[in-house]
Amino acid sequence: MVKTVDQDQSTQSQSGDLRQGSRPRVVVVGAGFAGLAAIEVLRDAPVELVVVDRHNFTTFQPLLYQVATAGLNAGDVAYPLRTVLRRARHAHFIQGTLAEVDAKRRFIGLEDGRIVDYDYLILGIGASASFFGIPGAEERSHTIYTLDAAVDVRNHIFQRFEYAASHGVHDGVLTFVVVGGGATGVELAGAIAELAHRALYTDFTMLGPDDVKVVLIEQRGRLLEAFHEDLSEYARRELRARGVTVLLNETVESVEEGLIVLKSGREIRNGLVLWAAGIAVPPVVSKLGLPTGRGGRIMVGSDLRVVGSDRIFAVGDVALSTNRDGAPLPQLAQPALQGGEHAARQILALLAGSETEPFRYRDKGIMATIGRRAAVAELAGGVRLHGTPAWVSWLLLHVAFLLGSRNKASVLMNWSWHYLSWGKGPRVILGG
Amino acid sequence: MVKTVDQDQSTQSQSGDLRQGSRPRVVVVGAGFAGLAAIEVLRDAPVELVVVDRHNFTTFQPLLYQVATAGLNAGDVAYPLRTVLRRARHAHFIQGTLAEVDAKRRFIGLEDGRIVDYDYLILGIGASASFFGIPGAEERSHTIYTLDAAVDVRNHIFQRFEYAASHGVHDGVLTFVVVGGGATGVELAGAIAELAHRALYTDFTMLGPDDVKVVLIEQRGRLLEAFHEDLSEYARRELRARGVTVLLNETVESVEEGLIVLKSGREIRNGLVLWAAGIAVPPVVSKLGLPTGRGGRIMVGSDLRVVGSDRIFAVGDVALSTNRDGAPLPQLAQPALQGGEHAARQILALLAGSETEPFRYRDKGIMATIGRRAAVAELAGGVRLHGTPAWVSWLLLHVAFLLGSRNKASVLMNWSWHYLSWGKGPRVILGG
Repeated sequence: MVKTVDQDQSTQSQSGDLRQGSRPRVVVVGAGFAGLAAIEVLRDAPVELVVVDRHNFTTFQPLLYQVATAGLNAGDVAYPLRTVLRRARHAHFIQGTLAEVDAKRRFIGLEDGRIVDYDYLILGIGASASFFGIPGAEERSHTIYTLDAAVDVRNHIFQRFEYAASHGVHDGVLTFVVVGGGATGVELAGAIAELAHRALYTDFTMLGPDDVKVVLIEQRGRLLEAFHEDLSEYARRELRARGVTVLLNETVESVEEGLIVLKSGREIRNGLVLWAAGIAVPPVVSKLGLPTGRGGRIMVGSDLRVVGSDRIFAVGDVALSTNRDGAPLPQLAQPALQGGEHAARQILALLAGSETEPFRYRDKGIMATIGRRAAVAELAGGVRLHGTPAWVSWLLLHVAFLLGSRNKASVLMNWSWHYLSWGKGPRVILGG
Repeated sequence: MVKTVDQDQSTQSQSGDLRQGSRPRVVVVGAGFAGLAAIEVLRDAPVELVVVDRHNFTTFQPLLYQVATAGLNAGDVAYPLRTVLRRARHAHFIQGTLAEVDAKRRFIGLEDGRIVDYDYLILGIGASASFFGIPGAEERSHTIYTLDAAVDVRNHIFQRFEYAASHGVHDGVLTFVVVGGGATGVELAGAIAELAHRALYTDFTMLGPDDVKVVLIEQRGRLLEAFHEDLSEYARRELRARGVTVLLNETVESVEEGLIVLKSGREIRNGLVLWAAGIAVPPVVSKLGLPTGRGGRIMVGSDLRVVGSDRIFAVGDVALSTNRDGAPLPQLAQPALQGGEHAARQILALLAGSETEPFRYRDKGIMATIGRRAAVAELAGGVRLHGTPAWVSWLLLHVAFLLGSRNKASVLMNWSWHYLSWGKGPRVILGG
C-alpha cells in the first residue's frame, strides 16, 4: 500500500466541497452534549451531516474535575469524533474553530479561512468561564472547562506538592482556592481535599494534613443554590469534614500576583486559584451577528431556531432558551442533550415539509458529588437523596452517559481502584 | 485541618538537610530501570535513601511507542515515584535535574541550585537520542524517549490525519519516516502502519490505504541487528505486509524544512520524522567531571563503581560496563535492571565492611514486537521465537514488569480492547 517514497499525491480538497448528490446538508458546530445529541438523530437520517469542532474528540465535561485531581486519565473522558461518525455513510468531521456565520449566503467560516456551506445549521458551541471583569481573575486563575485545562490544573497541583516537599510548606504553596460554590466548585473542592488529605498524605509523608488548605468561596449564603437548602447544608458539612474551609457571602475583589483579595478585606497568599464561579458564552458569539440576550447567549424561539433565522438553531449552553414559565434553562447537560435532539428533529420535520414544534424541557433532576460516598441528588418528582445512595446513583449515571465501552471500562476501573486504594490515580506531572 | 486562611506556615527547608540520625545516605539519581532496581534493594535496607529524578514518575520506556500510536494512555506507562517509596520509612524523593557531582565533598547539585549530600551515589540517568551530527536532524525530528515526547508524537500523527481529511492528501502530509531499524524503530514503524492502515482507515473514510506512507530507514543491511538473521528477515517481511517501505543500506544525509534527503539522493517530502537511530548519554554527563569512554558513557570498573571514585556507581544506559569478553553491554532494560541491583548490593556490602564483587550480566534474551501477533524473541540458550508465540511472550513479559497493579490492569484492558477492536485507542489530540 506504500507505493514509492517520493510519489506525488493527487490533491483532493474537501472543505467547502463535501456535498454528496442532492442530500440537504446539516452542519453541527460543537460536539458537546447538545451537538452529540443532534448527531445521534442526524447520523442515519437522509441528510449530509457535517460536524465541526475545534478538537478531534468530544469531552465528557462532568468528569473533568476528576482528571484535574488525578482520579482519571485524560483519555478516559475524551472520545474521538471520527469514531462517533464511523458508521455514518453521509457524515464528515472537520476539525476547525468557528469564526463567522453568513446567514444570508448560508455558510460558516472557520478561523483558518475554510468555508463550509449549510442548508441547516446547529450551533452548540458551549460556554467558557466568566470572570465578571474581576481584576486579575482571568490572567491568574485556572479553569477546568477543557481537557487541556484539566490536565494543566493537575500538573499545577502536583508541582505545588513537589515544591513543598523540597522547599517546605510556606507562603501558601499548598493553598487551593476554589471560587464558586455551584456543582463544579463543590466537586472540585471536595476532590482536591480528598486527594490532598488522604491520598497524598501517604505519598508526601513529610507533609501533615494541616499543611494543606482548601478554601471554597461562594458569594451567596449557601452552596449549590440550585438544590434544596437541606442538601446545601449537607454539602457544606461534608466539605468541612474533609477539611475544606467554606466561605459563604464572600466575593473575590481581585486576584493579584501571589495574592487573592476578598471583598471582606481578607487576603489569601499564593493560593492556586481555580475558577468555577460562572460561565459565559465563547467570545466568538458576539461576532456572529446573531441576536443575543442575557449573558450574551444567543436568543432562540420556542422551536430553538435563532430569532430571525429560518435555518439556524442554537442549543445547549450558548442558547438562551426558556422553560414554560419563561425562565432561562440552566446551563447543564440535560437541557443541552434534549435541546440538541429537538433541534435535529425539527430540521428533519422542516425537510419533510412539516412545521416545527416547540421545545419542552423535561427536568430529570440534578446531582453533584462531594467525595467518597457523599453526593446530593434532586430527582424529578421531588425525591432528594444524599450520602451513599446519591453517590452510587451519580456513579452509575455518569458511567452510563460516557461514550464508548472502552472509556466506560476504563473509568469504572479507575474509580474502583480509586475507591479501594483511597486514590492512587494517575498522579504524574506532564509537560514542561 | 484547615485552620485559618491567612495563617502563616512555618518554613521547613528540607533539601540538603534530610539526614536522619546516623544512617548512611545513598542517593539514587534517575529512576529508570537501573534506578528502580537499586531502589528495590535499598528501600528497606539500613540506609537513608534519597531518590532524585527530573519527573515525579518513572516511565516504562518499552511501551512509549504505544502511547505515541494511541494504543495506551500516557498514565498507563507512568508510575508515581512517591508511591514507589511509600512504605519506606527512611526514603525521600526529590524532583530535580542533576547539574553537578562534587566527588570530593560528596554532594550533587541540582539545576535549581539545591545541594544533596551523599555517602554513596548511584547514577542511572539514562540516555537521550543521538543525531550523529546529521544537519537538521535534532531540530526537525521527534523522538519517543520521554512520556511528553510520546504524547507529542501522537498529537502530530493525528493532526496530520485531520489535516489530510480537511485539505486532502498532498505533499507528504501522511508520510511517516522512522529512522533506525533497531527494536524501537521496528516497533514504531509497525505500530504506525497498523494504526494508519487498519484503525484510522475506519475513522478517516475519505482516505484510502494508499494515502499513507510509512518508511523505515536502516543504514545497515538488515533490521534488528542484535537478532539472528532469520528474525531480521521475518521482521522485514511482516513490516512489508503491513505496508511499511523498508529501506536498508540507506542513511539520512540531512533533514531540511519539509524535506528529508537520503545519502542515495532519494528525497522524501514533508514526512513526519521519527528518530530512533541511536541513543547518546544525556548532555549533563560531560559536565560531571567523571571519566567517560565510547559514546560518552561513564567508565566503570568491574564492580560498577565509576573509575577513580570509591563512592559513585554508574548503571544502566549511561554507564559503559562490559561483559566478560570486554564488550560493552547493550543499552537495554536487562543490563540496567541487573546493574542497578548489583550497585545497590555493593553499597550494602561496603557499608558492612566487605569487599565489592564484580558484576556478571546474565543475558536473558531480547525481544521486539512488530504488530498484532507478530514479534521476535531470542531467549538465552539459543531459543528463537517469532509470530504469535513471541508476541504473547512479549505481552506477558511487559505487563509483568509494569509497576503497579492499576497500571497493569489498565494496560491489559487497553491491549485487549485494542486487539478485539483493531485499535480504538485514545486517539485524541491534546495541547495547542
